[in-house]
Amino acid sequence: MTTPPPETADAPTAKSMEDIVALCKRRGFIFPASEIYGGINGFWDFGPLGVELKNNLRDAWWHDMVRCPPEGPDGESLSIVGLDSAIIQNPKVWEASGHVGGFNDPMVDDRETKQRFRADQLFGLFHYTAQPPGKDRLFFDDVKEKLSAGEFVAPLVTVVANSEEEAIRHFVGRDWKPPKPYKRDIIENFKLELNRPFDLSLLDSQGKQWYCMSIRIPLQVIENFTAQVPSPFSKDGKAGNLMNPRMFNLMFKTSVGAVQDEDSVVYLRPETAQGIFLNFKNVTDTQRVKVPFGIAQIGKAFRNEVTPRNYIFRSREFEQMEMEFFCHESEATKWYDFWVQTRLDWWKSLGISADNLQRRDHDAAELAHYSTACADIEYRYPFTAPGFGELEGIAHRGCYDLTQHQEHSGAKLTYFDQERNEHYLPHVIEPAAGLSRGVLVLLCEAYTPDPERPSKVYMKFHPRMAPIKAAIFPLVAKDGMPEVAQQLYDELRAKYAVQLDVKQNIGKRYARMDEAGTPYCFTIDGQTLEDQTVTIRERDTLSQERINIDQVGSYLADRIGG
Amino acid sequence: MTTPPPETADAPTAKSMEDIVALCKRRGFIFPASEIYGGINGFWDFGPLGVELKNNLRDAWWHDMVRCPPEGPDGESLSIVGLDSAIIQNPKVWEASGHVGGFNDPMVDDRETKQRFRADQLFGLFHYTAQPPGKDRLFFDDVKEKLSAGEFVAPLVTVVANSEEEAIRHFVGRDWKPPKPYKRDIIENFKLELNRPFDLSLLDSQGKQWYCMSIRIPLQVIENFTAQVPSPFSKDGKAGNLMNPRMFNLMFKTSVGAVQDEDSVVYLRPETAQGIFLNFKNVTDTQRVKVPFGIAQIGKAFRNEVTPRNYIFRSREFEQMEMEFFCHESEATKWYDFWVQTRLDWWKSLGISADNLQRRDHDAAELAHYSTACADIEYRYPFTAPGFGELEGIAHRGCYDLTQHQEHSGAKLTYFDQERNEHYLPHVIEPAAGLSRGVLVLLCEAYTPDPERPSKVYMKFHPRMAPIKAAIFPLVAKDGMPEVAQQLYDELRAKYAVQLDVKQNIGKRYARMDEAGTPYCFTIDGQTLEDQTVTIRERDTLSQERINIDQVGSYLADRIGG
Repeated sequence: MTTPPPETADAPTAKSMEDIVALCKRRGFIFPASEIYGGINGFWDFGPLGVELKNNLRDAWWHDMVRCPPEGPDGESLSIVGLDSAIIQNPKVWEASGHVGGFNDPMVDDRETKQRFRADQLFGLFHYTAQPPGKDRLFFDDVKEKLSAGEFVAPLVTVVANSEEEAIRHFVGRDWKPPKPYKRDIIENFKLELNRPFDLSLLDSQGKQWYCMSIRIPLQVIENFTAQVPSPFSKDGKAGNLMNPRMFNLMFKTSVGAVQDEDSVVYLRPETAQGIFLNFKNVTDTQRVKVPFGIAQIGKAFRNEVTPRNYIFRSREFEQMEMEFFCHESEATKWYDFWVQTRLDWWKSLGISADNLQRRDHDAAELAHYSTACADIEYRYPFTAPGFGELEGIAHRGCYDLTQHQEHSGAKLTYFDQERNEHYLPHVIEPAAGLSRGVLVLLCEAYTPDPERPSKVYMKFHPRMAPIKAAIFPLVAKDGMPEVAQQLYDELRAKYAVQLDVKQNIGKRYARMDEAGTPYCFTIDGQTLEDQTVTIRERDTLSQERINIDQVGSYLADRIGG
Repeated sequence: MTTPPPETADAPTAKSMEDIVALCKRRGFIFPASEIYGGINGFWDFGPLGVELKNNLRDAWWHDMVRCPPEGPDGESLSIVGLDSAIIQNPKVWEASGHVGGFNDPMVDDRETKQRFRADQLFGLFHYTAQPPGKDRLFFDDVKEKLSAGEFVAPLVTVVANSEEEAIRHFVGRDWKPPKPYKRDIIENFKLELNRPFDLSLLDSQGKQWYCMSIRIPLQVIENFTAQVPSPFSKDGKAGNLMNPRMFNLMFKTSVGAVQDEDSVVYLRPETAQGIFLNFKNVTDTQRVKVPFGIAQIGKAFRNEVTPRNYIFRSREFEQMEMEFFCHESEATKWYDFWVQTRLDWWKSLGISADNLQRRDHDAAELAHYSTACADIEYRYPFTAPGFGELEGIAHRGCYDLTQHQEHSGAKLTYFDQERNEHYLPHVIEPAAGLSRGVLVLLCEAYTPDPERPSKVYMKFHPRMAPIKAAIFPLVAKDGMPEVAQQLYDELRAKYAVQLDVKQNIGKRYARMDEAGTPYCFTIDGQTLEDQTVTIRERDTLSQERINIDQVGSYLADRIGG
């Protein structure tokens, strides 16, 4: 989900995804999965620096949500417990949750070439090319190539044009201006969703701003359409090769047990949340919790995205940090407001600039039928700038999930509230953040070009997030300096992720640490041997000062904690 | 893999799995996955206490392997970096690793009832029942029922009898005594593996000790056999319903992308190790590491076990902690010896009694063709006692994996060793531990019956592993005690997982903490308000002493660290 920038938005920052991806590969943050085998689309491996960064974010969330949750809106102590449920659950879970029935994209097969397209891409593509101006034919070929490589990116139905008005003309065939700012409307059976100007930099060789809009189209309309147009890969250009659209479920399916049949089908969870609802009763039965309270979980989830895209933003395997906060219906709005604000503040506390974060409230048309409110915390990614893309969603889910599981399982999931003397199904506020996506935000936010430095760039991680907290350098690998460095290293690493680096000239070692985002470097030099002081070089300010070697531990503790 | 007890073994401890499982459910360590839907065989959820216990074990491993690895055999500093690779990789990975071709069990289908059996179970069952003494027919029905419910447990081929000699007679049809103690031999085309006396408590209603043995049987022998015997579920008792055995791969298969065909098949990784080999080059290219060094990873793995069993010992979804240590061939034996000893010591450092741990070296017949040595660290689980079962394996893998991946991918994976001035594929020592299995060991080891306590049992976790480090109790919920308790709680929880409990009488609160394995309880009482002292109750000794409330933090730091 992407949205318009606030009207006061600054110009987009000059960070390019290409540069960030290159640094992540070069320094060992993120590698393409199975790279030596040509990779696998939508899967990524976290390298030595990436896993530490991800663990830091994971541990900060767990610490700040489970061990030391924030105070509630009235200053009260909150109770949140942890959980770790299995990725594979009984398949009835996903029938109850609605994922078997509703977690679908319409796909269209090409009879001749056996290629499969997301119906919306096909539709958008044709709708656009049905009225091509001169140069756009070239553009179409470009899109076709991307589509063929599985790289073409589109919300439900997308059209690309030079302006909003042009985009709309392509769709609705007449001059029409949308109600401002960015409202939805029903036009000629289409439910129109007008999104923000979209940076289609992948497609845009002229450096222009293209506009993008999405439309939910009834399946029937797509069927009529596919019957009438040729496949983009048709050799004779005749219609008739495209089959009727079929729904494609985004859950990965597998089979459990020795027999593979319908009864053995199971799914990889598409979200961690349902594992929490499944254990609601187990938790209230075994823990000293009373409503309101939360259950939190961090773990992998899987979605068979047709077009994974934007690096680790939309991958097929990813990690989530989800918390379900159970409360009485009458207090749900209070808790919803609390969690939206709390979660937004949390991301800021990790060093994400307020300018690059925004709260976007879903409007009524966007909400699931059971939900009364939902807000996204969005980040201005380089690939959405000047617009924003989702980082975390906070949903008011009502008592939908517990109701569904109670009905489908037959287990009684009501909670007895002693103070109210009332049996009820609690309502749920769900702050659901992407851990992998959070890592991407940390990487994008930290990436800071600086032509003055030898590395030309440094990673400005919040010290709490930095994969390496400090580096220890002997200025030269002789005169007893390595021994002093080793001793300091051994002392610090029991507590902090630190690195000892003895090779190369000091400038190159600083450059390495700038790219790794190490906030502090301690150098042992000739003077150290005389007066027991070391040089501290601070990553962001480049300031250098000397402190006594005995004070290095408390210097770090003051800045990093622990 | 299970093994004979050492000859000096004590009598098995009196811990029963049933009691441990019940405590884990009751206190929120482990729940059956999808319990409200009747569960799903082989999958488990970790509850609020279980996830903390598991995280403590996970973090201890990471700390002791990656951040602060042990000193090497010559006192040198070791270098080990972390990694987190995707669960789903390019399927070619598993062809290269041998998992597509070799990770198989033979299965036999029943044409009539469509049931499927592991060939060895069928074989063992028939071989046994072919010569039934009087009461054993009843026993057979019992086994049949278990088999039908998917609960029957067997190594490759199993026979159950009253003595070793009887078991062997069932197999080889004549009086034969195995070479002592527990050697392997080839008898009449069978490769015989004699295992330890096996506690078949599930099957044994008479409280007798049954003996169990395993035999690897050529597929041809099974084919001849299945052609001649009826299915155990045959209605007319005639042969001919059993189909030829087919190999069943233990990897979960799924399909990636919109099209489901042979090209889209991928697997859930059956081990985390291969993700490390895939990134060997990425790591050496991006990190300051030189051979010898290690790459460590913690993560989920999946095996579609035909008969998951023994609680979380053999589940279908589990977590591993694996480290691949890359070294020069000439030093591999040295590193192998080092890691076997180091890993054994590590488990002891977590409070696992030396009596319940043993090193078992694989003999030549057990080793993979590429491996020159392998040792298991085994634990005396309640379900293996007086014998032992696997907890961690340390394998000398030679350069097999890197060779395979180099051949299959075409990527050059050799390492240039500057000091030796030599290009080579490093050899690998792999300490591979089960994280889920480690949690089971911690639970079994901690479980301590004590009839004198109100709880009748306490969990004697090492303080480093305890899910709750300390509990804080106001003696009564009035007179300002809750406020003092809350203040202490807020102070401690920034650093430690502590719990505040204000309800019930103090005895019941101690009992809860005994079952949770909380090593220390601090009680705020009337005297606290006068002289600022609190009572410390120590879990194992039940000793109570008073210390000043200001000293509680350092009291914990001395015992838990941090």
